[in-house]
Amino acid sequence: MTYELILLRHGQSDWNEKNLFTGWVDVSLTEKGRAEAARGGQLLAEHGLLPDVVHTSLLQRAITTAHLSLEAAGRLWIPVRRNWRLNERHYGALQGKDKAAIREEYGEEQFMTWRRSFDTPPPELDADDEFSQAGDPRYAELGEQAPRTECLKDVVERMLPYWESSVVPDLQEGRTVLLAAHGNSLRALVKHLDGISDEDIAGLNIPTGIPLHYRLDEGLSPLNPGGTYLDPDAAQDAIAAVANQGRR
Amino acid sequence: MTYELILLRHGQSDWNEKNLFTGWVDVSLTEKGRAEAARGGQLLAEHGLLPDVVHTSLLQRAITTAHLSLEAAGRLWIPVRRNWRLNERHYGALQGKDKAAIREEYGEEQFMTWRRSFDTPPPELDADDEFSQAGDPRYAELGEQAPRTECLKDVVERMLPYWESSVVPDLQEGRTVLLAAHGNSLRALVKHLDGISDEDIAGLNIPTGIPLHYRLDEGLSPLNPGGTYLDPDAAQDAIAAVANQGRR
Repeated sequence: MTYELILLRHGQSDWNEKNLFTGWVDVSLTEKGRAEAARGGQLLAEHGLLPDVVHTSLLQRAITTAHLSLEAAGRLWIPVRRNWRLNERHYGALQGKDKAAIREEYGEEQFMTWRRSFDTPPPELDADDEFSQAGDPRYAELGEQAPRTECLKDVVERMLPYWESSVVPDLQEGRTVLLAAHGNSLRALVKHLDGISDEDIAGLNIPTGIPLHYRLDEGLSPLNPGGTYLDPDAAQDAIAAVANQGRR
Repeated sequence: MTYELILLRHGQSDWNEKNLFTGWVDVSLTEKGRAEAARGGQLLAEHGLLPDVVHTSLLQRAITTAHLSLEAAGRLWIPVRRNWRLNERHYGALQGKDKAAIREEYGEEQFMTWRRSFDTPPPELDADDEFSQAGDPRYAELGEQAPRTECLKDVVERMLPYWESSVVPDLQEGRTVLLAAHGNSLRALVKHLDGISDEDIAGLNIPTGIPLHYRLDEGLSPLNPGGTYLDPDAAQDAIAAVANQGRR
């Protein structure tokens, strides 16, 4: 038996557009981001990859991406599961800060460490910061467990229990799973699936709005390592654009 | 302990606008219907009635109404439950037919019997009709149980088991429940909650897009019989408009 898994990173949000660190701050999609989501759903329909169940984070940019893509694919009626463990990486004290200003203030090396190192989190966010999630009812049950900053390693550690306990059982039931989430929660999962090293994961970027299809064997190993983008040309262009950003 | 239940009927759909019988045909909301849904969510937020869980039918006009109202209320992250038992009444062979043409062809009395009698369903829809749901994967598990026509009595009988098994337990857990559904599945529930007779239910219409709030005691009896519309003036106007329609 082959398991069918589709990863979908949400498209442009208000704060992507403004170039602010977002993390767990619950910002909306822009019109561009909404169009990306619908295009993602059209690609699912064109490839006959119709999800039987959808998993999302608790953040509206992923939830609305799931809604708009399923609407475009004619599958709004499938069961929905949501969990904080699929949330974006918590960006700590950087949440709400301008990326260019942080780069200027702390320098390129520190900036890149916070953005891309596997195990160095940014400073913790104060509970009384305007961009803190302390007191947010959706995280009430986490209590003191609620993160106040995270590195990618932390994301891997909190995401995998949900993968094992909730997503894998859906796959094992033969359901095609759509997982609508974020740059870093998806990188954490891809790192796990493809066995990418702590060093190499820094260089991996997942483009927004383009469904990434994995076919997994019963041992949950990819039959198509690295997955297959449903629009490979657009994915290549997006990945090249990110790579070139670093060279400016 | 008091239980908090909010009923929300979806707003205008493509086929409401075209005056066609809809039933289980999965049509979209119009722009007006989308605006009604968002306004419903604003009313929830203004009244501090924030849902902890949402139940919907399997039809996109209810699903999208739930999404847009929860977006407006800032509660997209709550758990979602969907079930065919909350679907609109199946309109049988009338699905896809023009209401005015049916009235003309069959006469006012037959037309009103099909629309409003408690226990007389329209003729069954052929499985090979273009508006049949035979073969629709969302109803696959129903098999031969899938309705091919329904009267309101049928809707009561298939809706109540879901109410008992899935909605009531959420209420008993202390969750504020939003139930986003359809004219007839909501009439069936209101009939049950308020103990309305088979005859009197014919005269009850629930306006679209205006949250209807019930406070229930532990025996599930309404503390506010008939419920409370969150915009009473708009609800009264909508109900009066329907009543006057019959007098033209």
